[in-house]
Amino acid sequence: MKILIIGGTGIIGESVSDKLTPNHEVIIASKSSGDYQVDITSVKSIEQMYKDIPNIDAVISTTGASHFGDLSELTPELNEIAINSKLKGQVNLVLIGQNYINDGGSFTLTTGIMMDDPILKGSSAAMANGAVASFVKSAAIELKRNLRINSVSPNVLEESLRKYGEFFKGFNPVPADKVANAFVKSVEGAQTGQVYRVY
Amino acid sequence: MKILIIGGTGIIGESVSDKLTPNHEVIIASKSSGDYQVDITSVKSIEQMYKDIPNIDAVISTTGASHFGDLSELTPELNEIAINSKLKGQVNLVLIGQNYINDGGSFTLTTGIMMDDPILKGSSAAMANGAVASFVKSAAIELKRNLRINSVSPNVLEESLRKYGEFFKGFNPVPADKVANAFVKSVEGAQTGQVYRVY
Ligand SMILES: NC(=O)c1ccc[n+]([C@@H]2O[C@H](COP(=O)([O-])OP(=O)(O)OC[C@H]3O[C@@H](n4cnc5c(N)ncnc54)[C@H](OP(=O)(O)O)[C@@H]3O)[C@@H](O)[C@H]2O)c1
Ligand SMILES: NC(=O)c1ccc[n+]([C@@H]2O[C@H](COP(=O)([O-])OP(=O)(O)OC[C@H]3O[C@@H](n4cnc5c(N)ncnc54)[C@H](OP(=O)(O)O)[C@@H]3O)[C@@H](O)[C@H]2O)c1
Repeated sequence: MKILIIGGTGIIGESVSDKLTPNHEVIIASKSSGDYQVDITSVKSIEQMYKDIPNIDAVISTTGASHFGDLSELTPELNEIAINSKLKGQVNLVLIGQNYINDGGSFTLTTGIMMDDPILKGSSAAMANGAVASFVKSAAIELKRNLRINSVSPNVLEESLRKYGEFFKGFNPVPADKVANAFVKSVEGAQTGQVYRVY
Repeated sequence: MKILIIGGTGIIGESVSDKLTPNHEVIIASKSSGDYQVDITSVKSIEQMYKDIPNIDAVISTTGASHFGDLSELTPELNEIAINSKLKGQVNLVLIGQNYINDGGSFTLTTGIMMDDPILKGSSAAMANGAVASFVKSAAIELKRNLRINSVSPNVLEESLRKYGEFFKGFNPVPADKVANAFVKSVEGAQTGQVYRVY
C-alpha cells in the first residue's frame, strides 16, 4: 500500500512508520520536515498535498496541537489552537481526502485518553478528541467507495513521560510500539468506525 | 434561582422553561426574540450578555446549529456551521461564563443522540456533540467556586418528528417533557461532569 503519515516525524508517527515501512511505501509528512511539508490548519495546504501525492491507500494522522492550561485561564482564543489543529485539521484531512484517496482506502486519526479519563489542564484537548472520535464513528457509515475510517486513542506514552508525565500522574503509560500496532490494525484490518483505545 | 436559558424560545428550551418558571426566575435568551438577544457565535455578544444579566445561578443552553448533509458534500466551510454554533458557541458560554455566574452555579449544555448512534447526514453534528460531551466531562473537574457542568443528549423529540423524522427512522422519539426533566435534574441536583442521555 501507499501510506501517508501526517505527523510522521513525531513520537507516535515515527513508531507507526517503523512498523509499516518494511511492507509498504510510506510517505512521511509534517509541518517542517519529512518527505512532504503540509500544514493541517490550512485547507489549501491539505488540498495541495492530495494533489501532489496521488494514489494514496491509507492516510494516517498522528498530529494535532492543543493548548494545555487551567480551565480558568482557557479563553475562546486559546481554545482555537485545538479547534484549528487537532479538530479541524484532522477532520479536514478526511473531508478533503475522501475525494482523492484510492477505492478501499482508509483514514486513521489520533485522539487521546483524556476524552475518557479527564486530566487537569486538558479540557481543550479533551474537546478536540471527543469531536474527532464522534466524527469518525459517524463518517464511517457514510464514506463511499469502500473507504474506511478509525481513530486511535492512546494513553500517555512511555516515551513522552519526561514531557507530559506531570499531567498524567497515576496513569499507566504505554509504549509507542503498542500504540503503533493500533494504527497497523486500522490500516491492514477491515474494521471501520472504531475507536482503538490503547490504555 | 436566577436561570438563563439560551435557546429558550426553541422546542426544547420552551419545555425546559415551562418546568422551571413556577419555582425560579427564568430569563429567556435567543438570537431574535425572548427577554434578551444574544448570538452565541460571537464572543463579544456572549461577554455583553453576562455583563447585562448579573447574578445568574444557572446557565442552560438549548441551542446550537449544524449543517445536515451527506458526508460526500460536507466541505470544510459547511462544517464551520457546527463548529461556530453548536461547538464553540456552547463551549464559549462556559469559558466566558465561568468568570461571571454565581458561586455554586451550573452550566447545562445540549448535545444529541447521533454522537452515540450515528445517522446519515449527521457527521458534522455528531462531531460537535462529541466535542461538547468531552469538554463538559473534563471542565467539570476544574471549575472553581463550586460551579458544576453537565450535558443533556436527547434522542429525536416527538415534537420534532415532522421536521427531523426522515433522518431518524427506527429511533424511539422522546417527549420534550422528558428531555426537559434532564435539564431540571442538572440544575436542581448536585451532580457534575455527567452526560444525561434521554434515549
Ligand atoms: N505523546 C503522547 O503521550 C500522546 C498521548 C496521547 C495522544 N497523543 C496525541 O498524538 C498526537 C501526536 O503526538 P506526538 O507526541 O507523537 O507528537 P509530536 O512528537 O509532537 O509530533 C507531532 C507531529 O505533528 C507534526 N505537526 C505539528 N503541527 C502540524 C501541522 N500544523 N501540520 C502538519 N503537521 C504538524 C509535527 O511536525 P513538525 O515537527 O514538522 O512540526 C510532528 O511530525 C497528538 O495529537 C497528541 O495529542 C500523544
Ligand atoms: N429537536 C430535536 O429533536 C433534538 C434532538 C436532539 C438534539 N437536539 C438539539 O437541541 C438543541 C435545540 O434544539 P431545538 O429543536 O429545541 O431547536 P429550535 O427549536 O430550532 O430552537 C433553537 C433555539 O436556539 C436559538 N438560537 C439559534 N441560533 C442561535 C444563536 N446563534 N445564538 C443564540 N441563540 C440561537 C433560537 O433562537 P431564534 O429562534 O431567535 O433564532 C431558538 O431559541 C439543538 O442543539 C439541537 O441539535 C434537538
